[in-house]
Amino acid sequence: MGTQKAIVKENPEAGLVIKDVPIPDKVGPKEVLLKVKAASICGTDLHIYDWNDWSKVNIKPPRVIGHEFAAEVVEIGKDVTSLKVGDYVSAETHIACGTCYMCKTGNKHICQNMKIIGVHTDGAFTNYLVIPEENAWKNPTDLPIEIASIQEPLGNAVYTVLSGDIAAKDVLITGAGPIGLMAIAVARACGAGKIIVTEVSELRKNLAKEMGASFVLDPTKENVLEFVKDLTDGLGVDVGLEMSGKESALETLLSSMKKRGRVSLLGVFDSDPVIKLNNDVIFKGLDIHGITGRLMFQTWYQIKSLLENKRIDLSKLVTHKFPLSKFEEGIKLLKKGEAVKVVLYPE
Amino acid sequence: MGTQKAIVKENPEAGLVIKDVPIPDKVGPKEVLLKVKAASICGTDLHIYDWNDWSKVNIKPPRVIGHEFAAEVVEIGKDVTSLKVGDYVSAETHIACGTCYMCKTGNKHICQNMKIIGVHTDGAFTNYLVIPEENAWKNPTDLPIEIASIQEPLGNAVYTVLSGDIAAKDVLITGAGPIGLMAIAVARACGAGKIIVTEVSELRKNLAKEMGASFVLDPTKENVLEFVKDLTDGLGVDVGLEMSGKESALETLLSSMKKRGRVSLLGVFDSDPVIKLNNDVIFKGLDIHGITGRLMFQTWYQIKSLLENKRIDLSKLVTHKFPLSKFEEGIKLLKKGEAVKVVLYPE
Amino acid sequence: MGTQKAIVKENPEAGLVIKDVPIPDKVGPKEVLLKVKAASICGTDLHIYDWNDWSKVNIKPPRVIGHEFAAEVVEIGKDVTSLKVGDYVSAETHIACGTCYMCKTGNKHICQNMKIIGVHTDGAFTNYLVIPEENAWKNPTDLPIEIASIQEPLGNAVYTVLSGDIAAKDVLITGAGPIGLMAIAVARACGAGKIIVTEVSELRKNLAKEMGASFVLDPTKENVLEFVKDLTDGLGVDVGLEMSGKESALETLLSSMKKRGRVSLLGVFDSDPVIKLNNDVIFKGLDIHGITGRLMFQTWYQIKSLLENKRIDLSKLVTHKFPLSKFEEGIKLLKKGEAVKVVLYPE
Amino acid sequence: MGTQKAIVKENPEAGLVIKDVPIPDKVGPKEVLLKVKAASICGTDLHIYDWNDWSKVNIKPPRVIGHEFAAEVVEIGKDVTSLKVGDYVSAETHIACGTCYMCKTGNKHICQNMKIIGVHTDGAFTNYLVIPEENAWKNPTDLPIEIASIQEPLGNAVYTVLSGDIAAKDVLITGAGPIGLMAIAVARACGAGKIIVTEVSELRKNLAKEMGASFVLDPTKENVLEFVKDLTDGLGVDVGLEMSGKESALETLLSSMKKRGRVSLLGVFDSDPVIKLNNDVIFKGLDIHGITGRLMFQTWYQIKSLLENKRIDLSKLVTHKFPLSKFEEGIKLLKKGEAVKVVLYPE
Repeated sequence: MGTQKAIVKENPEAGLVIKDVPIPDKVGPKEVLLKVKAASICGTDLHIYDWNDWSKVNIKPPRVIGHEFAAEVVEIGKDVTSLKVGDYVSAETHIACGTCYMCKTGNKHICQNMKIIGVHTDGAFTNYLVIPEENAWKNPTDLPIEIASIQEPLGNAVYTVLSGDIAAKDVLITGAGPIGLMAIAVARACGAGKIIVTEVSELRKNLAKEMGASFVLDPTKENVLEFVKDLTDGLGVDVGLEMSGKESALETLLSSMKKRGRVSLLGVFDSDPVIKLNNDVIFKGLDIHGITGRLMFQTWYQIKSLLENKRIDLSKLVTHKFPLSKFEEGIKLLKKGEAVKVVLYPE
Repeated sequence: MGTQKAIVKENPEAGLVIKDVPIPDKVGPKEVLLKVKAASICGTDLHIYDWNDWSKVNIKPPRVIGHEFAAEVVEIGKDVTSLKVGDYVSAETHIACGTCYMCKTGNKHICQNMKIIGVHTDGAFTNYLVIPEENAWKNPTDLPIEIASIQEPLGNAVYTVLSGDIAAKDVLITGAGPIGLMAIAVARACGAGKIIVTEVSELRKNLAKEMGASFVLDPTKENVLEFVKDLTDGLGVDVGLEMSGKESALETLLSSMKKRGRVSLLGVFDSDPVIKLNNDVIFKGLDIHGITGRLMFQTWYQIKSLLENKRIDLSKLVTHKFPLSKFEEGIKLLKKGEAVKVVLYPE
Repeated sequence: MGTQKAIVKENPEAGLVIKDVPIPDKVGPKEVLLKVKAASICGTDLHIYDWNDWSKVNIKPPRVIGHEFAAEVVEIGKDVTSLKVGDYVSAETHIACGTCYMCKTGNKHICQNMKIIGVHTDGAFTNYLVIPEENAWKNPTDLPIEIASIQEPLGNAVYTVLSGDIAAKDVLITGAGPIGLMAIAVARACGAGKIIVTEVSELRKNLAKEMGASFVLDPTKENVLEFVKDLTDGLGVDVGLEMSGKESALETLLSSMKKRGRVSLLGVFDSDPVIKLNNDVIFKGLDIHGITGRLMFQTWYQIKSLLENKRIDLSKLVTHKFPLSKFEEGIKLLKKGEAVKVVLYPE
Repeated sequence: MGTQKAIVKENPEAGLVIKDVPIPDKVGPKEVLLKVKAASICGTDLHIYDWNDWSKVNIKPPRVIGHEFAAEVVEIGKDVTSLKVGDYVSAETHIACGTCYMCKTGNKHICQNMKIIGVHTDGAFTNYLVIPEENAWKNPTDLPIEIASIQEPLGNAVYTVLSGDIAAKDVLITGAGPIGLMAIAVARACGAGKIIVTEVSELRKNLAKEMGASFVLDPTKENVLEFVKDLTDGLGVDVGLEMSGKESALETLLSSMKKRGRVSLLGVFDSDPVIKLNNDVIFKGLDIHGITGRLMFQTWYQIKSLLENKRIDLSKLVTHKFPLSKFEEGIKLLKKGEAVKVVLYPE
């Protein structure tokens, strides 16, 4: 069969190359072959580029990367029942085994034998890829391909925001990266009270406002804890969403929480933080949730509802569009904090 | 002490009179004396007017009625710590004993020894009334008195809507009376997906749309179940809010529910309904919540957040304003379904 | 391929016959062939015998019935990964489609396209049957086959009891049939306070005591509501488990509930009950859960834990054991209320 | 009025003295005067003895200490309605203000203006003390005074164990001090699966077994993580209860958790721990609850149910009984880990 241009982690070292790879020609009985229309760059792709510790453990080069995308079904396996050729889909990127304890108790997103598209299997920064039927998510035909592509990180935001009550609750969101920005929009759409956001980048601070933040603070210049206490009669916020992976942000967030508040942690930390467990967690009676991935597939139905009913508008978060071959430019902009979501188009 | 004009249930029979009654002059150590600025007519007031069965059991004439209001604190009891003269307040109308099992386990709103302002104690359709410190709710100074007054029924709506998940959920609301209309606004503000409302009155159908309903159906003319099934891929709605107290509405609502959906029942029924328990509840794995009153005082904090952050705008629901002496006109309009909230002003 | 003796619904009419049927010889890629060691008679089997309305809709004769059983895996399909020949299994009887909304949101037990073993596919009252890999539940090797067989109804009991808090809660269980008796044992094992049971049969009343009931009342002779009120300072019970499908039992149960109590409904009703919705549900702030099947597979893991750690002992509930050919005797005893669980052994 | 012997923190320094203090003679309108029958020594009392940092902030000497006790009501304030002279009571030690956000939303146990009996008000290591009516908990007349006294720490254990699901769940409890031991009994009574306990003291290891632990490990000698993984098919435990306040125990506990497990933290830490947030919390999707005090008063009703229905038997945890004057001996034994609960009797 033919070849296609793909962005590939060629060797176990920093960097990515664009090169010809074979178009996949084996579609298992419960798999589908997809033709990519658009794919977006995730923070994880930057980590893979940089060949960080997580990448070293999880990626076996050569590997086509890319896992956020919109595509068309071009072939279906013989036992596929829920999709047909021509369907317009995105994908849940977590491939679950289906038989472990987690899979059998409604927690496929943390399957004990998890594989990730574009990490453990070849991904979407190319023309064609194969994924399990189960992982394909059928999109409404009128959903723009760029928005369809970024539904995967939107799912992280939705799961994080809705992992507890949000309506009529004051919220602190630390970090307005792509998922933080989406979380602002979701919180605002779901009736949150005051939405306070901490962020340093100007671009992202402005977008935070556009997504619905009530207040955006630069934690390097403003005393966030004091601000929160002033705003909340000294009580603190009801909900804290950690989206930065920074120890200092976590400390600010925990100290800013109201007693019995809910903290949802999505950001991945560079190093293990010290936590003031007595005063900030135990005596406060705090609830802390670790969040990873998206619920399979409750979160996807929530995404669908929010988009379909126009409760959120993420179009401004797609700051850049490039042909696949210009992916390096997108990566550069993202690293400098000058982009939010960069969408790539296979040629 | 002097006298004041008040709307009074004078005798154990239909009707209400306006007459002079003494201004209350005893303020207990944990009570406050309030000067009423505005008070609104509740459906319960109509029942009292009509002297229905519930009234016969609960009201001992003569009684000053009225329990939705905005007022100013004019005197505080000697042990009152959380209020001062001049405070602008509304009131939770359920007076809890504080010592029963319900009160001691966070459920004051269903106290075993409940008293209700304007039912078991003299109410607010007059110039002055006395309430327990605990029942006074301090309003923001810039809240219009009409909105402050209707916070009490708003609390019913908020408690009902938020008694389970609502974000990204499709909702069916049967009955767009005052509380149904408020529930639409709250559901919309809290990220509900499609909001389907059943109602017969033209006035209320129009207001339902203004409050944020996606679809408003007349159940006497349209097949609601079919409509819901069409709209939801045959699955039904996630959330059902019963606001009408009509058996036919309940039947429609239960049959329109998605499996594992959530039903919250607020409407009070004229007669005991027959329920298709097997197919509509048990095999569906439905969750049904009985709802009464408002959580004391979680619901009030939610109300505050929704109003303060402009998540809802109820001004259009105040359809009529009268001086206290014209209360009969308000009652007439309400009974004809030509009004939603009627606000009265003491003279 | 040979033949085997099986209990078969031969025609669309009352009765069951034992006759020779072909041993199944087609095992799909994700299916397993099982050799039955023991199978128990369920109330549903009695309904099928009687050819009630539900049977008429769901069964297409000829059909081998029987769905509670213990078996050995004798052949596995080519894509089966979680089982091997020789494994000792029981089965979840609900066959889920895997692709509907319910299946994709953690609710396979109420799949929109549900099939049931022994109802829509040939069942276990025979020597061999084929089931999907997913439905097989691996048993500990030391679990007696009779107990392994009755895990399926035990799952109903476990799901019902644990569908809300039970520890330190007073419970009323209406109906001490097989599942009601198991529910008593589970409630007792999980720290329930007072366990009050209503039942008329002497055999079952005695077994209710043995399973851990605190009080067993005959509702035809004793005033259950009064008893409950006396026992609970007039408050009522925290948890109500409806296991009888009788309108009178439901009425007693609802009136016996504490405010904000939890009611879980498992019993299937002969006719649609009238419910005192105002006083018994709405004003009480009750939570009512419809319960059907077992969570797939959270409930099975709970069963495993309860049995493995000896928290419950159900051996006394297996009141009768017969060879398959004597199934009519078992049915007769069950109908007279003189048996609880009847286990059949294929020859 | 007369004097009484009391254990007093006389000066802001280590140590406690027994001395004559005035019998309280002012009973406020909503207060009661109690005659102490038995009082037990809490770990907090040891901290007060040692004059640790927490004590320095919270105690203003001179102060009569002691907050776990059984007593008789000997005088009631004029507005007391729920108690009468002669009632046999214990006490919730947290005095809530009743008007702050926490108090008004069902969280009195973390009142923003909390006072603690025996810390901020004079306590129970004496003959007579005054407490608010609200804090008195009426005991069944047949409850032994030693058990009545230790209900307060039992409440910590009950709240911790029941702050999430426990039935049919495997549990790891780190630390078998008095509350850890009680937690074992509660977990066992409420249907927990395997109960694994870590503890170093021989006395406590033996008592852990008696309370119902399945396995008791010495974490200084055994690899707890490996043990847990072996026992749970590599999955880890469902529930982790931290009762030691030791960083190493916390690390073991978090690494031993199953994905989506529940961790409840009660132990107070000597120093702020480092937490492997990525792998142990976020990627696992863990839920962590900070626990402090007892729910007012849901927890007390749970205690009542567990004791009244004989679901737990704590009598073996009362290892020593002394007259008040011998309190130093009790403190010494506790510090050496040679006692669990020491009960003192006023003379």
